[in-house]
Amino acid sequence: MNKIGIGLVGCGTVGSGLIRNLPKANGLIAQRLGIQLEIRGIAVKDPSKTRPDLPLPAVGDWKKVVADPAVQIVVELVGGTSESFAIAEACIQARKPFVTANKALLAERGQELIALAQKSGSPIYFEASVAGGIPVLKALREGLVANQLLGLHGIINGTSNYILTRMAEAGSDFSTALKEAKDLGYAEADDRLDVDGIDAGHKAAILCLLAYGFLPKFSEIPVEGIRQISSQDVSFAHQLGYVIKLLAMIKPVGSEQIEVRVAPTLLPARHPMASVHGAFNAVGLIGNLSGPVQFTGRGAGPDATSSALLADLAEAAKNLCDKAPGPALPKPSSKMTLIEKDASVGRFYARIEVEDRPGVLAQVAGIFGSEKIGISSVLQPEGRGAGSVPLVFLLEPAPLSSLQRAIASICKLPNTRAPATILRVEDLL
Amino acid sequence: MNKIGIGLVGCGTVGSGLIRNLPKANGLIAQRLGIQLEIRGIAVKDPSKTRPDLPLPAVGDWKKVVADPAVQIVVELVGGTSESFAIAEACIQARKPFVTANKALLAERGQELIALAQKSGSPIYFEASVAGGIPVLKALREGLVANQLLGLHGIINGTSNYILTRMAEAGSDFSTALKEAKDLGYAEADDRLDVDGIDAGHKAAILCLLAYGFLPKFSEIPVEGIRQISSQDVSFAHQLGYVIKLLAMIKPVGSEQIEVRVAPTLLPARHPMASVHGAFNAVGLIGNLSGPVQFTGRGAGPDATSSALLADLAEAAKNLCDKAPGPALPKPSSKMTLIEKDASVGRFYARIEVEDRPGVLAQVAGIFGSEKIGISSVLQPEGRGAGSVPLVFLLEPAPLSSLQRAIASICKLPNTRAPATILRVEDLL
Repeated sequence: MNKIGIGLVGCGTVGSGLIRNLPKANGLIAQRLGIQLEIRGIAVKDPSKTRPDLPLPAVGDWKKVVADPAVQIVVELVGGTSESFAIAEACIQARKPFVTANKALLAERGQELIALAQKSGSPIYFEASVAGGIPVLKALREGLVANQLLGLHGIINGTSNYILTRMAEAGSDFSTALKEAKDLGYAEADDRLDVDGIDAGHKAAILCLLAYGFLPKFSEIPVEGIRQISSQDVSFAHQLGYVIKLLAMIKPVGSEQIEVRVAPTLLPARHPMASVHGAFNAVGLIGNLSGPVQFTGRGAGPDATSSALLADLAEAAKNLCDKAPGPALPKPSSKMTLIEKDASVGRFYARIEVEDRPGVLAQVAGIFGSEKIGISSVLQPEGRGAGSVPLVFLLEPAPLSSLQRAIASICKLPNTRAPATILRVEDLL
Repeated sequence: MNKIGIGLVGCGTVGSGLIRNLPKANGLIAQRLGIQLEIRGIAVKDPSKTRPDLPLPAVGDWKKVVADPAVQIVVELVGGTSESFAIAEACIQARKPFVTANKALLAERGQELIALAQKSGSPIYFEASVAGGIPVLKALREGLVANQLLGLHGIINGTSNYILTRMAEAGSDFSTALKEAKDLGYAEADDRLDVDGIDAGHKAAILCLLAYGFLPKFSEIPVEGIRQISSQDVSFAHQLGYVIKLLAMIKPVGSEQIEVRVAPTLLPARHPMASVHGAFNAVGLIGNLSGPVQFTGRGAGPDATSSALLADLAEAAKNLCDKAPGPALPKPSSKMTLIEKDASVGRFYARIEVEDRPGVLAQVAGIFGSEKIGISSVLQPEGRGAGSVPLVFLLEPAPLSSLQRAIASICKLPNTRAPATILRVEDLL
C-alpha cells in the first residue's frame, strides 16, 4: 500500500469536512487504487485555538507545511486570491502537486497560475472549484475531450437556486426566500457573492477555460444577480411556460469570440435544467459528438466539496505513484476575446408597467416593431382598478442594443412607468 | 506531436462513425493533449466488399491487425462475446491497450477479462459500453472515487425510453410506438435486446461492477422489458403523479448483498429522472459525500459512441506516451452476492381487472391487508357499463414474496380477472 503525505493549508468548514471524511474515503481509495492518503501537516491562521478535530497540531506558517518533506501534495483552502496564489506558487516551485477548491483564485489568476504550472510541469488540480459533488471539470477535460463544444450553460450557484425555487414553489418574495436560505445555512451573512452572481461568474470563467482554453478577464464578464426578481415575474414566467433560473451561459460566436454571462434567465419549464430544484447545481453542454449532456448534483457544502477534493487528491497521489504527469492543462488561447456586451443577441422577457388606458399596448408594440424586434407572446392581466397594469412580452431574438433602444423609447412614453424589468430567455437544446 | 497507431477490428455503423469523426476530433485531441491518433489497421468480416469510407484497405484476419507493430492500441467493434473475447485476450497478451464498446462482452465475460488484464497489467477501456455520450464510468472510477455509493439507478436503454415517452406524450400504444422507433432507426429489426431489457441488463451489470467491484452473473439478474406496458397503465401512472420508465436499479442490501434489476418502474413525475425524454439516457447515483448526482445524455448512436471511444483512445494514447498504467480496474469481490429475487422489498403498482360489483374493492383490499401490505393510493375509474373495471393500487413497501401471495389470492377471487399487472414503484431521492 502506497502512503502519500498530504498538507492542508486553511482549515475552516471545508477543511474540517475533509478531515472528517478522510478515514472512510481512505478505505475506499485503498481498495480501489491501492493508495492511502495521510495528513502530515496543517497550517491555520491561528494555531493557538484549540481544535480537537485536527489529527495533528497545526502550525501558523503555511511555508512550513509546503516545505515539509513528508508532505507530498498540498491542499489550499484559505480562499481569496493573494495568499492562495503565493501558496500555489510555492507548491509549483517545490514541484508538489497543488489541489484547491478556490474558484476566485482560478477565475481571477488562473492565467498566471497555469503559465507557472505549465512551465515547471508541476500539476494543479481544481475539480472542487466548480459544482462540488459533480465531476464536471474532469468530464470536460477527459470524458468529452474529443468533442467540440457548441455551448455550455449552468445553474452553478446553489444559494440563488434555492431562493428562486422557493419563490416559484411557495410564492415567496426575494427577501423572505433569502432569509430562509440564511436560516438553513445555504447563504452566508454576506450574501453578495452568491446572490449578485459573482460566485457563478467565477465558475463560468473556469468552465470557459476548460471548454475553450480561454479564461476571460473576470471584470469583463457581464454578471447579474437575482435581487431584482419579483414574485410577479416568477409567476408571469410560469404562466408563459417558463421558470426563472440564475443561468451561466458560455457560447462561442464565430471562431474567435465567445459570449460569457451570468443572468437571471427564463428557461422552458419542460427542459431538464428547469427541474433542478433547491440548492442543486447543474451544468449542461452540447458536444458535437456527444450531443446534449447534463450533470446535476450538489454544488456546495463540506461533503460535496470533500468528494471533489478527495478525488483530486487520489488522482494526484496515483500520478505520483505512477510517476505520471498530472492532467493536461488547457493551453490559454491568445486570439479569443469576449464579445462586446451590446453585440449579444438573444431573446428577452420584458415587463413594463403602464397606465391602464386604450392605445398603450399599440404604442409599446409599435416601438418593438420599429426596432425590428418580433413579439412571440404577450400577457396582460386584467386591470386592478386604478393605477398601473403590467404588460409582459416574450420577444423574438434581437441584438441587446436594439432591445435597449426600444426600452429607452418605451420608458419615455407618457403612459409608461420606468424602469422596465428585462430578463434573458434561453430555449436551450 | 506524438502519433499513436490505432487498429480497428470490426467496422459497422459504430466503426464507420469513428472513422468519420476522427479527423475533427484529432484536431481537438492534438490541441488539448498533444497527441494524434492514426488508424493503421482495419479488419472486417468481408474485406472484398468495396468500402470507400475506409482510410486504408481492410484485412479479413483480425490477428494481423493485433500483431501489426504499427498498431499500438486496438479498438474492438465486432460485438458478441466469443470472437471479441479472443481479440481482447490477444491484445492483453500482446500488451496492447484494448478499447471496446461491447457491453455484452463486459457484462457476460468481464470477470475473466479483468482477471487477465490485471494479471498482465495491460489496460482495457470500456467507457463506450454504457450510456454512450455520458462519461459515467469515468465519473464512477475517478470523479467519485472517494464515495461509498448508496445506490444507482438509470434509464439506460434509449429505444425503450423513446417508446415509453411516445406512449406518455402521444397516448400511443406499445406496438405503434415501437413501429415509430423502428422507422426512426432507434430500434433494430430484432427488437428483443432493447425492448426486453437485455441491453439495459448488460449495462446495469457493468455499472454494478464499477460501483461495487461485483459483476453479477448475467443470467441471474432479474430483467423485465416493456412489452406488457399498456397505454392504460401509462395514463393511470400519470393520474397518480408518476411516469413509467424502464429503470435499472442497483442497490446494496446490507454489506454483502446487492439487488440488481431492470424493470418498468413508476417514478415520481417531479424527479429529474422523470424528465429524461425520448431516446435520452440518464444515470443517477447517491454518493455518501457527493449526495445525489444525475448524468443525462445520449446513450447510443454512432456519434455519441464515438465520443466515448475517442475519449478512451485519447486516454490510452496519453498513458502510452506517459508510460503510465491504465485506469485502475475494479477488483472483483468474491463475497458479494445478488439477493434472492423474492427477498426484494419495494413499492408496487397493481392494476387488477374486476367485475363491477359491490364488495369487490373490499375483498381485494382485505387480501392486501392480510399480507400486511399498506395501500397508499387507489384509483377506480367509473364503470364503463357492462364488463370489467380496472382497480389500481399504489402500495406501501412490502417484500415481493408477500405481494406475489396477495396477487395470487386476488386472482382467485370470483370477481377478478387474471392476470394482474404489477409494476415497480421507486420514489428515488
